[in-house]
Amino acid sequence: MIRIILNGCFGKMGKMVTQASYKFENLTIVAGIDVNTNTTSPYPVFNNIDECNIDADVILDFSRPAALPSLAKYCIKNNMPIVICTTGFDLEGENIISNLSKKVAVFRSANMSVGINVINNILKKISSYLYKGFDIEIIEKHHNQKIDAPSGTALMLANTIKSSIEEETIFSHGRVGECKRHKKEIGIHAIRGGNIVGEHDIIFAGQGEIIEIKHSAISREVFAIGALDACKFIHGKQNGLYNMDNIIDENISL
Amino acid sequence: MIRIILNGCFGKMGKMVTQASYKFENLTIVAGIDVNTNTTSPYPVFNNIDECNIDADVILDFSRPAALPSLAKYCIKNNMPIVICTTGFDLEGENIISNLSKKVAVFRSANMSVGINVINNILKKISSYLYKGFDIEIIEKHHNQKIDAPSGTALMLANTIKSSIEEETIFSHGRVGECKRHKKEIGIHAIRGGNIVGEHDIIFAGQGEIIEIKHSAISREVFAIGALDACKFIHGKQNGLYNMDNIIDENISL
Amino acid sequence: MIRIILNGCFGKMGKMVTQASYKFENLTIVAGIDVNTNTTSPYPVFNNIDECNIDADVILDFSRPAALPSLAKYCIKNNMPIVICTTGFDLEGENIISNLSKKVAVFRSANMSVGINVINNILKKISSYLYKGFDIEIIEKHHNQKIDAPSGTALMLANTIKSSIEEETIFSHGRVGECKRHKKEIGIHAIRGGNIVGEHDIIFAGQGEIIEIKHSAISREVFAIGALDACKFIHGKQNGLYNMDNIIDENISL
Amino acid sequence: MIRIILNGCFGKMGKMVTQASYKFENLTIVAGIDVNTNTTSPYPVFNNIDECNIDADVILDFSRPAALPSLAKYCIKNNMPIVICTTGFDLEGENIISNLSKKVAVFRSANMSVGINVINNILKKISSYLYKGFDIEIIEKHHNQKIDAPSGTALMLANTIKSSIEEETIFSHGRVGECKRHKKEIGIHAIRGGNIVGEHDIIFAGQGEIIEIKHSAISREVFAIGALDACKFIHGKQNGLYNMDNIIDENISL
Repeated sequence: MIRIILNGCFGKMGKMVTQASYKFENLTIVAGIDVNTNTTSPYPVFNNIDECNIDADVILDFSRPAALPSLAKYCIKNNMPIVICTTGFDLEGENIISNLSKKVAVFRSANMSVGINVINNILKKISSYLYKGFDIEIIEKHHNQKIDAPSGTALMLANTIKSSIEEETIFSHGRVGECKRHKKEIGIHAIRGGNIVGEHDIIFAGQGEIIEIKHSAISREVFAIGALDACKFIHGKQNGLYNMDNIIDENISL
Repeated sequence: MIRIILNGCFGKMGKMVTQASYKFENLTIVAGIDVNTNTTSPYPVFNNIDECNIDADVILDFSRPAALPSLAKYCIKNNMPIVICTTGFDLEGENIISNLSKKVAVFRSANMSVGINVINNILKKISSYLYKGFDIEIIEKHHNQKIDAPSGTALMLANTIKSSIEEETIFSHGRVGECKRHKKEIGIHAIRGGNIVGEHDIIFAGQGEIIEIKHSAISREVFAIGALDACKFIHGKQNGLYNMDNIIDENISL
Repeated sequence: MIRIILNGCFGKMGKMVTQASYKFENLTIVAGIDVNTNTTSPYPVFNNIDECNIDADVILDFSRPAALPSLAKYCIKNNMPIVICTTGFDLEGENIISNLSKKVAVFRSANMSVGINVINNILKKISSYLYKGFDIEIIEKHHNQKIDAPSGTALMLANTIKSSIEEETIFSHGRVGECKRHKKEIGIHAIRGGNIVGEHDIIFAGQGEIIEIKHSAISREVFAIGALDACKFIHGKQNGLYNMDNIIDENISL
Repeated sequence: MIRIILNGCFGKMGKMVTQASYKFENLTIVAGIDVNTNTTSPYPVFNNIDECNIDADVILDFSRPAALPSLAKYCIKNNMPIVICTTGFDLEGENIISNLSKKVAVFRSANMSVGINVINNILKKISSYLYKGFDIEIIEKHHNQKIDAPSGTALMLANTIKSSIEEETIFSHGRVGECKRHKKEIGIHAIRGGNIVGEHDIIFAGQGEIIEIKHSAISREVFAIGALDACKFIHGKQNGLYNMDNIIDENISL
């Protein structure tokens, strides 16, 4: 049984992780950390990681960049691996993560969904080969409150494709007027509407055939499950920086 | 049996119309007109409509704007209806068509596919109602040699939606950077790749649900069939200007 | 402001209706009815409709068939319209509903989503016309715990199509071996997997073109919103039995 | 420049191969073989491979099983590799192919599309891993004249998945009535309608997310291009039996 300390346990994602943990047989959340400790919880909750006196195997962090320094100290002191799902670190934060990974196992990913990372992995393998005969376009769909376009995940996928292809490519974000497609374009189209959770569709359009690889997020629960899968993965690993690709590779390449 | 004179019978679409005509029981091509008369053909072919001495019921035109004046004269002289699939008329051409329609039945459409016109018809009926709770976006896909974006058909559909909605709407052709969706936007996204024949997908994205109405052209044959359906429709009609909506309305509203 | 009494306010759908009601400007839940009255709530909650002494305009019922008799009495006594989202009534229940609708306005639908009902409405109008040149197939997708196939909504849509077409049609639920398609078949295919909320895709496949009309439910919230739309609709209506088509027709046909 | 002898050059696929060959820079058809030698052709055509006196590098066969014995003799005599796209061999034919592959390079595939074979390759790599958390279903769509269901390609893909998964799985071809999904089911759904060229969609439906991998054939030209790619691949290879996977592997694994 892998014992997890959940940092940020009463945030939107923290609550989802708690719910999702009941679907796993071999892991359990033994303690939570949150600035708010008034809410009832199935496990003891502490204001600060330093106050936590519960034995555990992995820290799972879904909080804010400010929490990182004390988490890092705790990990080093207890030789404990950590899964970082928090985003938006500045350079100082990135340095802390980099140094931390020299001492304990650190898992980190921009998108915790297994599916997106499987697709990212596929794209690494097929893009260079298919590029010769196929034009590549990406369509992503999200809710109408999303501020940026394209989505971070769409950019991650597009960059995976770009770096797999030897020839120079450029991203194109919309077409209007006379604009015949250049071979080197990778179109990235951002559709916005209603409360779509998140869709990413990579299109390889060739002569006489089309390949599409598509991911649809049904609910944010998928990110909670991905984070818990990461906890299982990181448990027992030696120091180093890991990401979703390591999980996928470990399972798929064999 | 409806007897058709096919103007432009050896062009790309003319040949397709000839093939498609064998699928119809109640119509037949009795003569063709083409500048090239050397090619073998199952029906007599003339250089010019004035040389054509075959009895017929309808003229179907898939040629060039320059052919219009002589076609118009022939129609008036013989009191014969015409289906015009040629595009790109200048103001003078438009005037000829307008005047011609006062004397004989003239059928004309930017897109001869039954499916696109059924969809256009649906959009007229549902857009205003759905707009209150749904965001509207259009995705169109075409081959990588298409010069313009968005497609003329996508614009036709978008304009149908726009004119059905009381509130002001604007077309948006791509999103990048900070660009939170305005309610009044109708996104129109042009995907280009390989030799995709043509797809149009209208998305109504609401709170908790999405409606999509999608058209896929499998081959250009569909435009030939639409043109022949138009010949059947126009046969026996009195003077006036008709389009695909008239076919759809006649069949669906009843 | 339309004042609603929500019967079954602490059930799964009841909670969702309460949340969804905050998105509506012109309606408010003024009281709830539930066997459980211990839970905190933004409105007063009563054990039984007879104990409810709050002035209201509409009753919305998301409970169990057993609640119907007392609800019916209350509606008649107070001349109050009712929206019934409860399902599974026996013959006696059906009779109560039928009689109730002779005295007050009763709204009832198997699927409260606006989108599905708009699509059902479209199918009534286009199926007969398209059937001549298009083959019709339905694909529905649901989660892997769903017991029946095809879904009730898929059957509703299929029956709408069937009853719109003059020729005899039959439903086909899977193909294997030698099974060339008969023109009269309407294929209905049930995909099951993961926790898909619900998708229904109606395909019209013709010569050279395909029309698809597709509905995707993102979350069950859509059924809550549909129920509240029904409350708005039924308010002020005279006695009779109404369903989602009446809402759609009122808005779309005009 | 790879010089190709095209056996069956005036058949439906032979003509398409001739057209498609102009799109390739490094290969050319130097001779054709066909029972019919009256048709005009851009290259010399012989009644029989034995009469062909043109130097060449590869034989491409799109004909009938009866042609195999003389083709095999020719290949052995001239130490020439062969791409066999003909299907339907009996046991004797299979033996000839097996023996031939011990002497020269023989390429053979049930589906010559690059796209389908890339997808088949992906499925080999991801199915076992994803099966733990995802339910797998396949939807294939073809024209209404197709006699069998599911398509041979759908079965090929399904068998690839089945043989990648350690646990026992069974194919399910339609659901009706009470039929809750068993984990071990792989649903294969055959949609038939109009003149759809061919679509194959493999769905991995998990908790909170869906991965789809989809192939659409736009025209049969894609099979001609695949066959010519195979000619390029087989040129210069030593004896042995090769298929599309070898092309994909050679390009993608590196």
